Amino acid sequence: MRIVDLHAIRKAGERIRPFAHRTPVLTCAALNQMAGADLFFKCENFQKAGAFKFRGACNTVLSLPDGKAGRGVVTHSSGNHAAALSLAARLRSIPAHIVMPSNAPSVKIAAVKAYGGSVTFCEPTLESRETTALQIVEKTGAELVHPYNDLRIIAGQGTAVLELLEDVPDLDMVLVPVGGGGLLSGSVLAAKGLNPKLRVIGCEPKNADDAWRSKAAGRLIPAGNPKTIADGLRTSLGSLTFPIIRDHVDAVWLAEEEAIVQSMRLIFERMKIVVEPSSAVPLAALLAAENPETRRCGILLSGGNVDLSSWFNALISV
Amino acid sequence: MRIVDLHAIRKAGERIRPFAHRTPVLTCAALNQMAGADLFFKCENFQKAGAFKFRGACNTVLSLPDGKAGRGVVTHSSGNHAAALSLAARLRSIPAHIVMPSNAPSVKIAAVKAYGGSVTFCEPTLESRETTALQIVEKTGAELVHPYNDLRIIAGQGTAVLELLEDVPDLDMVLVPVGGGGLLSGSVLAAKGLNPKLRVIGCEPKNADDAWRSKAAGRLIPAGNPKTIADGLRTSLGSLTFPIIRDHVDAVWLAEEEAIVQSMRLIFERMKIVVEPSSAVPLAALLAAENPETRRCGILLSGGNVDLSSWFNALISV
Repeated sequence: MRIVDLHAIRKAGERIRPFAHRTPVLTCAALNQMAGADLFFKCENFQKAGAFKFRGACNTVLSLPDGKAGRGVVTHSSGNHAAALSLAARLRSIPAHIVMPSNAPSVKIAAVKAYGGSVTFCEPTLESRETTALQIVEKTGAELVHPYNDLRIIAGQGTAVLELLEDVPDLDMVLVPVGGGGLLSGSVLAAKGLNPKLRVIGCEPKNADDAWRSKAAGRLIPAGNPKTIADGLRTSLGSLTFPIIRDHVDAVWLAEEEAIVQSMRLIFERMKIVVEPSSAVPLAALLAAENPETRRCGILLSGGNVDLSSWFNALISV
Repeated sequence: MRIVDLHAIRKAGERIRPFAHRTPVLTCAALNQMAGADLFFKCENFQKAGAFKFRGACNTVLSLPDGKAGRGVVTHSSGNHAAALSLAARLRSIPAHIVMPSNAPSVKIAAVKAYGGSVTFCEPTLESRETTALQIVEKTGAELVHPYNDLRIIAGQGTAVLELLEDVPDLDMVLVPVGGGGLLSGSVLAAKGLNPKLRVIGCEPKNADDAWRSKAAGRLIPAGNPKTIADGLRTSLGSLTFPIIRDHVDAVWLAEEEAIVQSMRLIFERMKIVVEPSSAVPLAALLAAENPETRRCGILLSGGNVDLSSWFNALISV
């Protein structure tokens, strides 16, 4: 694959269909009233492994030629991508090598292992992660799968918006969280491919506004070490995702930390579904927008992997 | 209505159809594996006002003759029934008088008011609640609507299992939480009316086992003042619900407190949906059962109104 276009995203959709969930699109009268628009939530929190990441990982694993695939896949993400890649590899019965820092939360290590990934620990620095991953590539011949800066990943992530627009064709806007930009890149290529007039907005935490700043400056400006509750959106755009976002995305909207938590709470309490903080960023940005100019708005709920253990532990100890 | 039978439940279903959500039936591969059976969750946590209670309240409000309806409805429940009755009354544009103890949690008072109920406070004793409600009846001519010991309520609650069995006809067992017994009574009459061989099991906290004890003794034994996290199931069976449960329900299963919390956590983490503790009691009882003898099991998730404010407040303060 040299470029990602609607055709490539449709091919990815066919490839992953037997393995990925076709997630539902939910609506909520109370949230419609608050937003002054009809909202259509694409629920990737219900996706396998709990996040949209399974789409890209599955597309990549299934795209590998047989000989190459047998050597497995490698990544050094420790979040949803690692779990998704582990599960996708298991479905093809190939090894998944996941490089994680030695101080990774035990819940993330357990998730990767539960999906069949084999974990290699490294020092908690980017350099150590990359070196360790490359050592595994050299030793095993496994394919390195970047969490977002990879055309196969971008095409896979684009399938969520493809399904959303099949279910609800007459949207005038789609809001998509943006971290590394894989989901937003795939989404905008799918959406504009189907309907060039459909507005596509990236949404990110104000505390991790590298996409907003990069788009404003016209050049890639990586985030430093951003502090935001939306842990899935701390990463910066990549060399493949930035140009797509620069050229095709209509705007980037920002959300304050407190608004992110409040929107996550609205989704829990009004929709009765579990989402991770990153999923709440688009709703937070929409509710804060002064004149969002939308009547029918799609919202990507990116995932539902949130650590509720403190709450449940408090319940048991009562 | 003199008795509740399948016909009455079907009539209730037709009556509430324009107002109530037809809630989805969800499945979860991970929970199937843990239970060793195929589980089908009827998601009343997605029902209007957040619980199955809206079905019975709506059926009752819509059953009132016009002249009577105009005088409104009264109840002295302070939980999901109060919110559901307020909403049902608003949909018919009639008053709902909700008697609540002066020490009721502010979140419950706010919920009732948000659905348009008008709140009358009383002393926090059953006697004061009943007296205050009767005073409102005398003053306004409003209809007293008991949360479960009412044939219109029982018929309305039975519509959830009716829908479940339309969507998944070939179940061999249905698990239903039991508190006052309105949901269980309606469910067993609907289920046995459609298929007498279908086993219907009531599930309650071991700490509030009045249904189990009443069924074993063959007479109504009210619970004292049970302490259980499943706050919706603290009430005792009523004079109308006990005979139905005694004569038709196959068994009552019990769940320990810690198992209830663990099952609630499984539902949050694996299914990514929000449920209240009462909803988790059937799964907890099933997972604890030594030989549940089921291959295809329906589970009523009764509601999703759970107070997560401590968790969200902790997130904001970080």
